[in-house]
Amino acid sequence: MNKSSFGSHFTVTTWGESHGKALGAVIDGCPAGLSLSEEDIQKFLDRRKPGQSRYTTARKEGDLVEILSGVFEGKTTGTPISLMVRNTDQRSRDYGNIAYSYRPGHADYTFDAKYGFRDYRGGGRSSGRETIGRVASGAVASKLLASLGISFCTYTKSIGPVSIENFSPEEINNNAFYMPDADAAAKAGTYLEKCMKNLDSAGGVIECRITGVPAGLGNPVFEKLDAMLSQAVMSIGAVKAVEIGDGIQVAHMNGSEDNDGFTIKDNMINKTSNHAGGIMGGISDGSEIILRSYIKPTPSISQPQQTVTSQGRQISLEIHGRHDPVIVPRAVVVVESMCALAITDALFANMTSRLDKIQKFYSK
Amino acid sequence: MNKSSFGSHFTVTTWGESHGKALGAVIDGCPAGLSLSEEDIQKFLDRRKPGQSRYTTARKEGDLVEILSGVFEGKTTGTPISLMVRNTDQRSRDYGNIAYSYRPGHADYTFDAKYGFRDYRGGGRSSGRETIGRVASGAVASKLLASLGISFCTYTKSIGPVSIENFSPEEINNNAFYMPDADAAAKAGTYLEKCMKNLDSAGGVIECRITGVPAGLGNPVFEKLDAMLSQAVMSIGAVKAVEIGDGIQVAHMNGSEDNDGFTIKDNMINKTSNHAGGIMGGISDGSEIILRSYIKPTPSISQPQQTVTSQGRQISLEIHGRHDPVIVPRAVVVVESMCALAITDALFANMTSRLDKIQKFYSK
Amino acid sequence: MNKSSFGSHFTVTTWGESHGKALGAVIDGCPAGLSLSEEDIQKFLDRRKPGQSRYTTARKEGDLVEILSGVFEGKTTGTPISLMVRNTDQRSRDYGNIAYSYRPGHADYTFDAKYGFRDYRGGGRSSGRETIGRVASGAVASKLLASLGISFCTYTKSIGPVSIENFSPEEINNNAFYMPDADAAAKAGTYLEKCMKNLDSAGGVIECRITGVPAGLGNPVFEKLDAMLSQAVMSIGAVKAVEIGDGIQVAHMNGSEDNDGFTIKDNMINKTSNHAGGIMGGISDGSEIILRSYIKPTPSISQPQQTVTSQGRQISLEIHGRHDPVIVPRAVVVVESMCALAITDALFANMTSRLDKIQKFYSK
Amino acid sequence: MNKSSFGSHFTVTTWGESHGKALGAVIDGCPAGLSLSEEDIQKFLDRRKPGQSRYTTARKEGDLVEILSGVFEGKTTGTPISLMVRNTDQRSRDYGNIAYSYRPGHADYTFDAKYGFRDYRGGGRSSGRETIGRVASGAVASKLLASLGISFCTYTKSIGPVSIENFSPEEINNNAFYMPDADAAAKAGTYLEKCMKNLDSAGGVIECRITGVPAGLGNPVFEKLDAMLSQAVMSIGAVKAVEIGDGIQVAHMNGSEDNDGFTIKDNMINKTSNHAGGIMGGISDGSEIILRSYIKPTPSISQPQQTVTSQGRQISLEIHGRHDPVIVPRAVVVVESMCALAITDALFANMTSRLDKIQKFYSK
Repeated sequence: MNKSSFGSHFTVTTWGESHGKALGAVIDGCPAGLSLSEEDIQKFLDRRKPGQSRYTTARKEGDLVEILSGVFEGKTTGTPISLMVRNTDQRSRDYGNIAYSYRPGHADYTFDAKYGFRDYRGGGRSSGRETIGRVASGAVASKLLASLGISFCTYTKSIGPVSIENFSPEEINNNAFYMPDADAAAKAGTYLEKCMKNLDSAGGVIECRITGVPAGLGNPVFEKLDAMLSQAVMSIGAVKAVEIGDGIQVAHMNGSEDNDGFTIKDNMINKTSNHAGGIMGGISDGSEIILRSYIKPTPSISQPQQTVTSQGRQISLEIHGRHDPVIVPRAVVVVESMCALAITDALFANMTSRLDKIQKFYSK
Repeated sequence: MNKSSFGSHFTVTTWGESHGKALGAVIDGCPAGLSLSEEDIQKFLDRRKPGQSRYTTARKEGDLVEILSGVFEGKTTGTPISLMVRNTDQRSRDYGNIAYSYRPGHADYTFDAKYGFRDYRGGGRSSGRETIGRVASGAVASKLLASLGISFCTYTKSIGPVSIENFSPEEINNNAFYMPDADAAAKAGTYLEKCMKNLDSAGGVIECRITGVPAGLGNPVFEKLDAMLSQAVMSIGAVKAVEIGDGIQVAHMNGSEDNDGFTIKDNMINKTSNHAGGIMGGISDGSEIILRSYIKPTPSISQPQQTVTSQGRQISLEIHGRHDPVIVPRAVVVVESMCALAITDALFANMTSRLDKIQKFYSK
Repeated sequence: MNKSSFGSHFTVTTWGESHGKALGAVIDGCPAGLSLSEEDIQKFLDRRKPGQSRYTTARKEGDLVEILSGVFEGKTTGTPISLMVRNTDQRSRDYGNIAYSYRPGHADYTFDAKYGFRDYRGGGRSSGRETIGRVASGAVASKLLASLGISFCTYTKSIGPVSIENFSPEEINNNAFYMPDADAAAKAGTYLEKCMKNLDSAGGVIECRITGVPAGLGNPVFEKLDAMLSQAVMSIGAVKAVEIGDGIQVAHMNGSEDNDGFTIKDNMINKTSNHAGGIMGGISDGSEIILRSYIKPTPSISQPQQTVTSQGRQISLEIHGRHDPVIVPRAVVVVESMCALAITDALFANMTSRLDKIQKFYSK
Repeated sequence: MNKSSFGSHFTVTTWGESHGKALGAVIDGCPAGLSLSEEDIQKFLDRRKPGQSRYTTARKEGDLVEILSGVFEGKTTGTPISLMVRNTDQRSRDYGNIAYSYRPGHADYTFDAKYGFRDYRGGGRSSGRETIGRVASGAVASKLLASLGISFCTYTKSIGPVSIENFSPEEINNNAFYMPDADAAAKAGTYLEKCMKNLDSAGGVIECRITGVPAGLGNPVFEKLDAMLSQAVMSIGAVKAVEIGDGIQVAHMNGSEDNDGFTIKDNMINKTSNHAGGIMGGISDGSEIILRSYIKPTPSISQPQQTVTSQGRQISLEIHGRHDPVIVPRAVVVVESMCALAITDALFANMTSRLDKIQKFYSK
């Protein structure tokens, strides 16, 4: 697998730096015949757009996507889909003072360690802008999955100490935080005001629920569906933990609590609970897949921080400029996109698991 | 990537079912010149061996490994290393009564959904015995890493409600649970007695600390080192959550708390803390890598459970036979093995990241 | 892709040295439900067996295959199939005198250059015995393809200067050379007698014709079906050239001669000729696939040859022992096996090329 | 491996159709620190440019490359390099009359068979313009290899019946055909005049010689260096055969003729001949690598040809428009580019073959 690609069957390769000419992705393995327009992708990109509330950076990023290949007369052709977003509002001088400083919580030090130098303008390849390629590709995967009856519900479960207490799906798009609970969203706003006053930032939790996934996706060993979802979501810069179903709670449960029983309902086999989060032994069981990811606070803060330069000089660094006090809201669509990529890949991989189905596929 | 393989450079493919003729692994990409004997591998396998305490299954599994290829006169040759362990104590009749029942918490249902039928003897490919191939390969990776100064400390952090309160590394191998705290181990024993009396089982937490990893391993985007470690560890059957460094705690922290500063010590750049767990922006920073995995309780319990048969008949199932009331202790070496495989792969992948180093490598 | 594996969907990994304990292969990605026995595989292995005529080595190699995993009650389970053949007749002393000599035409020198040392017993990993794993896997792929109506006809087209002049398929298995022409086989025998008297060896050409391949397999760019077949066949040790359809002749043809026209026959689209050998733009067109491979003469000859030792001493080397004067006949089944692996992989890869077919596959 | 990618370590993914908005490539795995400018790439692209002689299409293709990412202050950063060439001279009406006809010798029929429909404008993804992405990437690989002392000499060996008889490397860039023999070039011109008068086209042979490749590249089994070179070159649309070293001739040679002996010269081990073309047992031996590819005649000819439409109607088709009577000259740089990609990938893969070298690499 190449290092900047995800997926063995529906393969996405992203490229681009925050202050380079453009960012983009190439999707290789999208089947022919999917209706696809730039609007389909733009809708997803707009969900990660900055400048939409006072809690996200004031930078104006147009982020208009261009489809460069792989679509003909409104349908995918089966060949690689190249997607590009030009960088416009770059103002690289904002970052000039940190060119040789190792910002705490950022990848500056590790990039220098790995490559010997780095594109220091705005984080380069480690910038949150890299997720543009992920989200643009996630939009394509989501549309494909929707045509197969698979849908996503992704939202903010908590910001700092504020967790949702109610679940009103229709509320998710009504507040700046994508929280399914208006009260929690209000409290989160208050909390973030305090963080901003303290020149500080906050983290949070994003939950993704996936409905309509057929039983049988995933593999028994290394390519377990939960393992691939974990890689997908952990590959997002700010994620530090991931859990499936009851997740960390299982360590404190007994087998009699954690096991999901089976029952018959309308002649169909059903589970009596879903502690497993829709995946058993690495393979989807047909019930809702539930995944949570834990997002760290934005590392760019204006408080003075102790650090060093690449020349080994000790300094106190204050990072000014336009940074989100919390990236959780904008990361919601990134988590959803990565889950969509992993599910699509597993869906395709599963098509060769049974000889009788292969025979039927190729019979005339 | 093939479905039963892990790693792009140091590639491990495992095969085998719990009640088939044998289990094993093929390691492709192990460099030539590593001293390797069957004893090196046996030591690792013995750490996952059952029958070592009253808290692990009484099954006697010899689990003697045979090196079939890739080693000549005591050294690896650079060609594939084939490792095999014959199954001996199979007693498949133990499992006869569950051939057509879907055991709660197991992969029986999902295997049938995926493949149309399954090897029902003892879990087949989803059995914990599949980890023999992982551990045998992990032993090879660990020996290789040791020759580069990289070492592992892996232990049980909690079992059920009992967490360690002290950390005495020398204690880890002194108790049946691989806990670095003798008191906690005693309490865990008492707790498990209660579970067994209740015909129930328990879960727990395993922590892995990796020392000596050079800065620069991992990649900025999809193949982040933490993402690959997450896939590696989440691919272990019973793991339901994984976290790096402060992990789930970061969601509640402020940036000023979570950021690790830098300082100069003895002319070397050092971090002032390690909330990140040794990985920044997906790339190792040279400090200790810290990973935790959350293990679910053993699903096989003797309490009656509600389930169905593959023919759709509702039944009450009691699973008898020899099952561990907790699999955490035996999973410690599995977590360590998977981490060793991921680190080895990242170490190899990193060798082509800088042209000057490639030029030096190939200069005469 | 790991170095000792072939195929992204139906993935074969081979392992083993000529004088190690055993040789084998792991097939990952074989669908569940294929009837498979050791006899199915043995039949293929017997086609590459030595000692069957005076033109092949007198070594007796039992080469009995054992299925270690992935088959349950006579059917594949969808999990990895591990195949093993124990080495029995090893007599490694035959090779003692060449432990430190670089045999002309062999991989001795390049192994030392790559790995620093080598298993010098009988060629180690570069021995023709490595093809046991390929042929055992090819047997499984062939059986799977047969169930989809795809069949192979592979034979020797020439040995040294002797080419077939007639094509009688029923004759292929009637002579020691797998030639479809009894007269040519007789002449080839006479020619080889002369070679043996001269302490020399001969090469030849193997042709493979594949019938029943549906149109649409392969990809437009790097994974063209002809490109994958070429890698597959060129990866056989003694092959130095490969061609598809008219092959090398196309360089001398005009477009009006080389182009295959189309016509309608029984309401079906047909080609009026098959210069392309069944593949257009890298994708199968439904007609017969035709591939030829050019096999070099056996490098082990008893004539004195000028060479050096690994210590840089100039020597004259005479290779005695039991070597085939021509390896073409035994390579026929190896070429067929590699083609079967490439076709199977392409067949599986093609299943995700159209959205409408994916929708139909997953509709209930 | 994704379908439109080549290489596991230095991975190139191409995208784009002949009449879409643009074509391009993403290079993932290029090490940091290589000096790279758009001029470096443009020089390679200009070698495949049409409109340079009366024997190549009169279409004017500006083919100006833009580097969109992965280069900072004139050096590669180690992150993906995105390269793009906008399509300008499209004139899609030229192709209108063939939208529903299956052109003989083209991929029209097989694309419809695979995808259900196709971008019929100028061959879409199967157009020779797809090679822009290959050549742009090949330029980067070549520059990298040059910094390691590896160089290429690629030229036309024959066009139709006209073969070179002398080898003057300085002549290669002096004629429209990239032939190292001025007389042969003149004869080839005369021959092509005749072809054009006959509304016909011609094929030819391209030879690539690679100097400076260290011994040890390639792998013993499936990823043999010759196998990877074969896939690379066979993946070029018009190539129908490939050979290494003596290639097809080996089938007629005796072992005593084909084997390359070894000798000592200046305390170095040398081969006494190079029938093998620089590769033994799939691994480079340090001598010149020699590869030949056989190119079919341009399939687009103006003679009437018998074919059918996608609706199954029998027609006579005359293809007008601007087509090269021979594509061999423009394919020279494509063959060189693909060889450069394969060599680079093997060079990187080889860095993990010996533990002592890995230890040295990571020692401080």
